[in-house]
Amino acid sequence: MPVFLITNDDGYFSPGIQALREELKKLGRVVTVAPDRNLSGVGHSLTFNMPLRIRRVDEDFWTVIGGTPADCVHLGYYVILEGKKPDLVCSGINEGPNLGEDITYSGTVSGAMEGRILGIPSVAFSAFGRDEVDFRSVAQVCKEVVLKVLQYGMPEDTYLNVNIPNLPPDEIRGFMFTRQGKRAYKEKVLRLLDPQRRPLYWITAEEFGWELEEGTDYWAVYHGYVSITPLQLDLTNHRALRSLQERWRV
Amino acid sequence: MPVFLITNDDGYFSPGIQALREELKKLGRVVTVAPDRNLSGVGHSLTFNMPLRIRRVDEDFWTVIGGTPADCVHLGYYVILEGKKPDLVCSGINEGPNLGEDITYSGTVSGAMEGRILGIPSVAFSAFGRDEVDFRSVAQVCKEVVLKVLQYGMPEDTYLNVNIPNLPPDEIRGFMFTRQGKRAYKEKVLRLLDPQRRPLYWITAEEFGWELEEGTDYWAVYHGYVSITPLQLDLTNHRALRSLQERWRV
Amino acid sequence: MPVFLITNDDGYFSPGIQALREELKKLGRVVTVAPDRNLSGVGHSLTFNMPLRIRRVDEDFWTVIGGTPADCVHLGYYVILEGKKPDLVCSGINEGPNLGEDITYSGTVSGAMEGRILGIPSVAFSAFGRDEVDFRSVAQVCKEVVLKVLQYGMPEDTYLNVNIPNLPPDEIRGFMFTRQGKRAYKEKVLRLLDPQRRPLYWITAEEFGWELEEGTDYWAVYHGYVSITPLQLDLTNHRALRSLQERWRV
Amino acid sequence: MPVFLITNDDGYFSPGIQALREELKKLGRVVTVAPDRNLSGVGHSLTFNMPLRIRRVDEDFWTVIGGTPADCVHLGYYVILEGKKPDLVCSGINEGPNLGEDITYSGTVSGAMEGRILGIPSVAFSAFGRDEVDFRSVAQVCKEVVLKVLQYGMPEDTYLNVNIPNLPPDEIRGFMFTRQGKRAYKEKVLRLLDPQRRPLYWITAEEFGWELEEGTDYWAVYHGYVSITPLQLDLTNHRALRSLQERWRV
Repeated sequence: MPVFLITNDDGYFSPGIQALREELKKLGRVVTVAPDRNLSGVGHSLTFNMPLRIRRVDEDFWTVIGGTPADCVHLGYYVILEGKKPDLVCSGINEGPNLGEDITYSGTVSGAMEGRILGIPSVAFSAFGRDEVDFRSVAQVCKEVVLKVLQYGMPEDTYLNVNIPNLPPDEIRGFMFTRQGKRAYKEKVLRLLDPQRRPLYWITAEEFGWELEEGTDYWAVYHGYVSITPLQLDLTNHRALRSLQERWRV
Repeated sequence: MPVFLITNDDGYFSPGIQALREELKKLGRVVTVAPDRNLSGVGHSLTFNMPLRIRRVDEDFWTVIGGTPADCVHLGYYVILEGKKPDLVCSGINEGPNLGEDITYSGTVSGAMEGRILGIPSVAFSAFGRDEVDFRSVAQVCKEVVLKVLQYGMPEDTYLNVNIPNLPPDEIRGFMFTRQGKRAYKEKVLRLLDPQRRPLYWITAEEFGWELEEGTDYWAVYHGYVSITPLQLDLTNHRALRSLQERWRV
Repeated sequence: MPVFLITNDDGYFSPGIQALREELKKLGRVVTVAPDRNLSGVGHSLTFNMPLRIRRVDEDFWTVIGGTPADCVHLGYYVILEGKKPDLVCSGINEGPNLGEDITYSGTVSGAMEGRILGIPSVAFSAFGRDEVDFRSVAQVCKEVVLKVLQYGMPEDTYLNVNIPNLPPDEIRGFMFTRQGKRAYKEKVLRLLDPQRRPLYWITAEEFGWELEEGTDYWAVYHGYVSITPLQLDLTNHRALRSLQERWRV
Repeated sequence: MPVFLITNDDGYFSPGIQALREELKKLGRVVTVAPDRNLSGVGHSLTFNMPLRIRRVDEDFWTVIGGTPADCVHLGYYVILEGKKPDLVCSGINEGPNLGEDITYSGTVSGAMEGRILGIPSVAFSAFGRDEVDFRSVAQVCKEVVLKVLQYGMPEDTYLNVNIPNLPPDEIRGFMFTRQGKRAYKEKVLRLLDPQRRPLYWITAEEFGWELEEGTDYWAVYHGYVSITPLQLDLTNHRALRSLQERWRV
């Protein structure tokens, strides 16, 4: 029976992780270790400077007080599972998509990234769509992705970023492997005044969106497909590496 | 005269950013926007859910209360520079290296990443070495890197992760373009007891280190070179993308 | 039908506030507004420098993201109840006592203090006892205190700090009005080393305890009584005021 | 030569604490231990649940990372001074007054409160006035108060809350011992919308102010006096204690 270690960045109480937990229990043992608060946008962050507390929520269900998604995967593996590798780390289901360069800010993706760093096959799940997310239905799609991963295995040094359209199951057009797309939104900083009329600045966007280019994560979910983007830990731009060596002549 | 926007993750009061600021002032206008506290290990995180306050520290010197390095670059560009692109974003100088997969946790690197996302050439600077860092001497090396970038330009979609050995200038053996290396350290979680004898867990490592493979960032600094790793925003594993399409037959 | 506004400092998910909520529902409408995380030891703190978000948990049940107990009472009154005064503010049930000078650190007491500042009769509830707290049984005692307050009213400028022994109902010896006692514990600061062998300091105590003086809050709970201490907002030491005027001759 | 332990709630870098430090150095040894960030409105809060780090800023000058004013006094006494009692704890100079019931929210006052709990004579200093505070001039008044305290001593169980008008020295009309006044301001909660048009709530006031009653802290500073309010740790409402015993017949 496979063992799943799951986390998220919305907090252990969020409906997204609860739906995922219920669905994966049909396939094996599910050990849940999640933050005790909403940490959306936390990026990949590991707590080295302070010790952490773990609190039991329920059977095989734990929360790390003040912990990040990466902390939760780390402590889930080393403390709760006592260093025994789970078959899969799953992070999510995030309420909202993780597409394009925005994944570098994503706490959900960072949970899967930490799993990969620890040498465990890992998948991040996010729901795409404007309306309220039907997590139960999205979780069923997650389960299908998980079954495929268990069947075919994960390429070396790879983890998956999966975005699932928030659509009725019969309207989803299938899986599509994609590459990371690009932000097309115009950032904006709103200036507002606090009650004492001192300025405050709010980082936001005209309208969030991505370039609609074929083969990208955004193209897939926009057209009703489940987008599966294989990611790697190596951030090196190998092409630039060669061109810089020539230009700088070092 | 070039305009530099600089930030860091150790806080505006840290000696590393002050040394960088003094050195770059010899080349142009330096606008400093840095966090008001130490945020090491914060990862790439942008504050969307709350407005932020900016406090003036000195001439062309600002701090963002509770802001991350990415917030500082974002607000530096849109608010302080009023949307006029600086010639270069510099992040650092970090006290300690940013090597291998650890760069995904790095607040210093995330400052440069945000610069790149905003379409500005960007460089992250970190100091490598066990002893106390001589930031003035390291900052002189930073200035030389900056001069090269201004002279030769930055390849498209690239930002640089620079690690500088903490050595006397005449012992540094030159620049070396490198690829991202790999962690070789054995993680460890320490279990300790709080004064009420409840357990706490501390994420740490046996000894921090990386694989000593030729061509990597660690190899370079270990041998006394300044390591310059060109990074990209695209995390897609393109090789895995093709192999997965075949295996899953989707 | 009376309206109760309840909060706590352990977070909206804690069993103490849930037991209180269930019990008070038998007497009237219960509007719960509580922090989204554990804030024990937060003291009396009101968030003036940033706006706050309110999230609905359930019918008449809300949480303030990042909010303190005082914030919750403030927003419960002005936003959720739209400025209509509830009949009583209740804060708790805290897991652990709030006795002696320690009440000045107490987030639980600060929730009642804020109710009093807003002109609403207010009570803080805490459970005393080493073993695991039986909140259902403690909540029944809270209900009896609430009934008395509704019947006899609250003296002007007064709020109540109630500590309830964690005992089976038939072992509780009754109500006792008390004065604030005094800490008798010897503070201690533990010095420990982090994994990099840098010092850390932990504020704690040899053994927590208070002076066993008749008429005090501690004396009452120690002997099995429900301690009810009437508190005031005025911290002036009126006796010292007179003696200082004479001594300094101002 | 007297030893002073000083702290504040605005952070170690604030001009208020620096002016106080400089002025008190004329009288004795000044050991400064202050938070590493602005903690206004933190209330009386002591960090029991996590260990704390102390960082050296300068000679006899320290900051506690993430620490509250009470933590700073506690660690200053037990760690920096190694348990040797200083002659006086001073907290401040706060930028802005601490008057009426608002002192229960005050981090500045809580620093002095902690000193008192530890058995050390303690004074909180705040500056009153709308314009920019001239801290050097206010610090001179602080020094005069300190001299008086050293000369006449402090009544038992008392600590002082001192508010100093931000006026040229020759316009200050002298010292006045006062009692704690009362808030007269109308609280207000502003409702605003975030960029995604979700509501946020901001706790503020129509206009901050207090009742202008003779003998109160506010009356004194309003009329140009230095207000000195002796405070006590006992929050018991002794009058209500008697009346409740009669009414409830317990």
